[in-house]
Amino acid sequence: MRRKVYVEGSRPDIRVPFAEVDLSNDDPAVRLYDTSGPGGDPEVGLPQLRAHWIEERGDTEAGPALGPATQGQTVRHARPGRRPTQLHYARQGTVTPEMEFAAIREGLAPEVVREEIAAGRAILPNNINHPESEPMLIGERFLVKINANIGTSAVSSSIAEEVDKLTWATRWGADTVMDLSTGKHIHATRENIMRNSAVPIGTVPLYQALEKVNGDPKALNWEVYRDTIIEQAEQGVDYMTVHAGVRLAYVPLAADRVTGIVSRGGSIMAAWCLAYHQENFLYTHFRELCEIFAEYDIAFSLGDGLRPGSIADANDAAQFAELDTLGELTHIAWEYDVQVMVEGPGHVPMHKIKENVDLQREKCAGAPFYTLGPLTTDVAPAYDHITSAIGAAMIGWWGTAMLCYVTPKEHLGLPNRDDVKAGVIAYKIAAHAADLAKGHPTAHEWDDALSKARFEFRWQDQFNLSLDPDTAREYHDETLPAEPAKTA
Amino acid sequence: MRRKVYVEGSRPDIRVPFAEVDLSNDDPAVRLYDTSGPGGDPEVGLPQLRAHWIEERGDTEAGPALGPATQGQTVRHARPGRRPTQLHYARQGTVTPEMEFAAIREGLAPEVVREEIAAGRAILPNNINHPESEPMLIGERFLVKINANIGTSAVSSSIAEEVDKLTWATRWGADTVMDLSTGKHIHATRENIMRNSAVPIGTVPLYQALEKVNGDPKALNWEVYRDTIIEQAEQGVDYMTVHAGVRLAYVPLAADRVTGIVSRGGSIMAAWCLAYHQENFLYTHFRELCEIFAEYDIAFSLGDGLRPGSIADANDAAQFAELDTLGELTHIAWEYDVQVMVEGPGHVPMHKIKENVDLQREKCAGAPFYTLGPLTTDVAPAYDHITSAIGAAMIGWWGTAMLCYVTPKEHLGLPNRDDVKAGVIAYKIAAHAADLAKGHPTAHEWDDALSKARFEFRWQDQFNLSLDPDTAREYHDETLPAEPAKTA
Repeated sequence: MRRKVYVEGSRPDIRVPFAEVDLSNDDPAVRLYDTSGPGGDPEVGLPQLRAHWIEERGDTEAGPALGPATQGQTVRHARPGRRPTQLHYARQGTVTPEMEFAAIREGLAPEVVREEIAAGRAILPNNINHPESEPMLIGERFLVKINANIGTSAVSSSIAEEVDKLTWATRWGADTVMDLSTGKHIHATRENIMRNSAVPIGTVPLYQALEKVNGDPKALNWEVYRDTIIEQAEQGVDYMTVHAGVRLAYVPLAADRVTGIVSRGGSIMAAWCLAYHQENFLYTHFRELCEIFAEYDIAFSLGDGLRPGSIADANDAAQFAELDTLGELTHIAWEYDVQVMVEGPGHVPMHKIKENVDLQREKCAGAPFYTLGPLTTDVAPAYDHITSAIGAAMIGWWGTAMLCYVTPKEHLGLPNRDDVKAGVIAYKIAAHAADLAKGHPTAHEWDDALSKARFEFRWQDQFNLSLDPDTAREYHDETLPAEPAKTA
Repeated sequence: MRRKVYVEGSRPDIRVPFAEVDLSNDDPAVRLYDTSGPGGDPEVGLPQLRAHWIEERGDTEAGPALGPATQGQTVRHARPGRRPTQLHYARQGTVTPEMEFAAIREGLAPEVVREEIAAGRAILPNNINHPESEPMLIGERFLVKINANIGTSAVSSSIAEEVDKLTWATRWGADTVMDLSTGKHIHATRENIMRNSAVPIGTVPLYQALEKVNGDPKALNWEVYRDTIIEQAEQGVDYMTVHAGVRLAYVPLAADRVTGIVSRGGSIMAAWCLAYHQENFLYTHFRELCEIFAEYDIAFSLGDGLRPGSIADANDAAQFAELDTLGELTHIAWEYDVQVMVEGPGHVPMHKIKENVDLQREKCAGAPFYTLGPLTTDVAPAYDHITSAIGAAMIGWWGTAMLCYVTPKEHLGLPNRDDVKAGVIAYKIAAHAADLAKGHPTAHEWDDALSKARFEFRWQDQFNLSLDPDTAREYHDETLPAEPAKTA
């Protein structure tokens, strides 16, 4: 069976969880990376694993929240002039408890983790107001990670449902979760998600900013956006997608596309730019954003608002013009000790995938790449977890650090619980296949243990080692006689 | 909606089916490759599309069947000294009606088809006793094809179920079907499948030969195998997997593997070789096999009995030793005007896939490659349609001509109807993604039409153009209000 075990680090409060699978023969138990978190009562929230680490650094202080929505709450802010970011400490040569925790998860030396973060090649997203998070790494040198999107919408779903989806997604292996809620209860939904999440939470603040101006892109401005950022920062959001690369001059480049601008954030900012014929206010205020992000250790996820929405539009001038700007913004964020990753497409046929990774690595000086798939064909709605797992595996092999999942409902509707699981499983497959192909030193041990169990007809070991033991067991029992076949 | 249309060739009896999708705007209808066949009453069987083409060549004659199981039936044999194979005619410079039919399906000139067949780079598998088949091509230059395995076993399933699976698999896009039946009713199952199949049917004759000797590999011999080949030849089997590459000297090379020999045919022949310490009788009798195959225009599918069964065993000495022999056998088959394709793995991590295609192309002088996946990780039983669709798409891009599907039940049990569909859909995605990446001149038209429909919110067009319109429609209707959203 599988059970949770903890590996202790250099101090007793660094206890790193793994899922351990005991085998029925004499082979050693197999330890798997574990994203499921400590669990607990959703009304109470998770234990604050990092609270002491954050406090003891002395670079932050607790005080009243600034945001109107968080009024009356006590939250943490940076002390004046301090930058409580992991990038700051990594550059100083300090290995934080967070870095050590994440290093143990990866099976690597803490110093390697510090170096990768210091060089900007990896991020460890953890807002000082999200002490519940278990530190993890996003970077080419580390295991490929996956993100699952959840979120309420105006059309359907409740807060309880979304917290359940969070727990469900991380149970199957989601390394981070993005809360893409829209509609009335954005703030409350996010509060519930934050307090119950052991994985970093990402958001697209533009969605909430747009709600605040009643859905009219023209009514957006820097102040509304900034206040939204601060509200979310105080809740503990670990990384935020910012569409600062959709510059006014690039919008016309998308005019002749088959599918125009398909990123929601991209189209909102393009509409704003065109309405005023002005430069994107996120671009012009980017340094102010950096200052805020540095105060909470929020990581940038530089959004690709001009990503292609179809095979026909892949790798075009609009996409690559924006990538140039994302490279420029990456360097600016680093000036402020702010961690950065960069988002990528989208819809790309296989032969055009590698160019995306190579260009991103070059333009963004090795900052982690975080791609949505890519989907390798447009012809299979209802199966885009598969069309995109193909592209995700390849782009992961070639260096992408995190893969944003796609569910079977992509393009068709909102994912339910089964869709979330289908998306997570397809992407864990892609990520693990990429780890094998990258030559990660220990990734193959999982495959070898399962294959050996298979060859020796140790069925229970095979099931317990499976990415999804429940379904493997169920499929087996469906057609073959139960016990004799399993122990044969 | 979709409807079947026919494109006429140079003579009125060449009528090539396509699935045509009308669009709701003024764009031209989209024509899709169609594998579904003419349909009909399973008790009667399909019309004999090719009967006249076969007869008019005058190189075969109808006569009493030779095989004991087919006794009393009238079947076709080559006239003495004649080789009624497509390869023979291609080499003579003749474009057969079969070649023209297949050329129209591919949107290419018939002369291109003839050249590719003549050079051995493509096969057009169609036994003279399978006049019901609609000619199709397997070759690097053409659209990537997929195969679906079906078959009764001792454990479960009936003949009617298997014919239903055939119809079901081709409805979703299977280009060929392999009947891997074992157990009591092999001959009758195959007869029903042959008479109802518009796609080429492949088999592994060794399975039936083994049944004839009560499952004891040691009791196998050349005579039993030869009689089985003839029985199946007279029924019309279009291609046969022959495990002639599992040579005695290679068996020890698999001894230290994590998963030994996992191919069923491979382990049977290895057991035979080791029992007698003699060379594989399929290797020593290969020229006699060629003579029989030439008489019926059966294509070889040279089996890879030593394919790796796990990530750990990929690209090892056993696998590549056998590939050398498959190259040697390819050239021998060509001496007899027999069409050949070559089977490949199996389980291969992404970074080792390309080597397989490159080596096969070199050793087998461009003969079509036909691979099982490959699976890119071993850790996801119940999802091996996905672990393998990733590898299949990549190996297809790099030149593999046909991809043998893997269903979610792989390693766990026998596929049911839903599993067959899941496997076919995953592989159609892989094949089409490969066609796009290979730069097939017209493949992108399907994607472009669907993407344009998506961007313009022409929901019905998007559904009708989908690989699986039923599921796309169902998923959409599940979460979004029905009519307004679809026409919005």
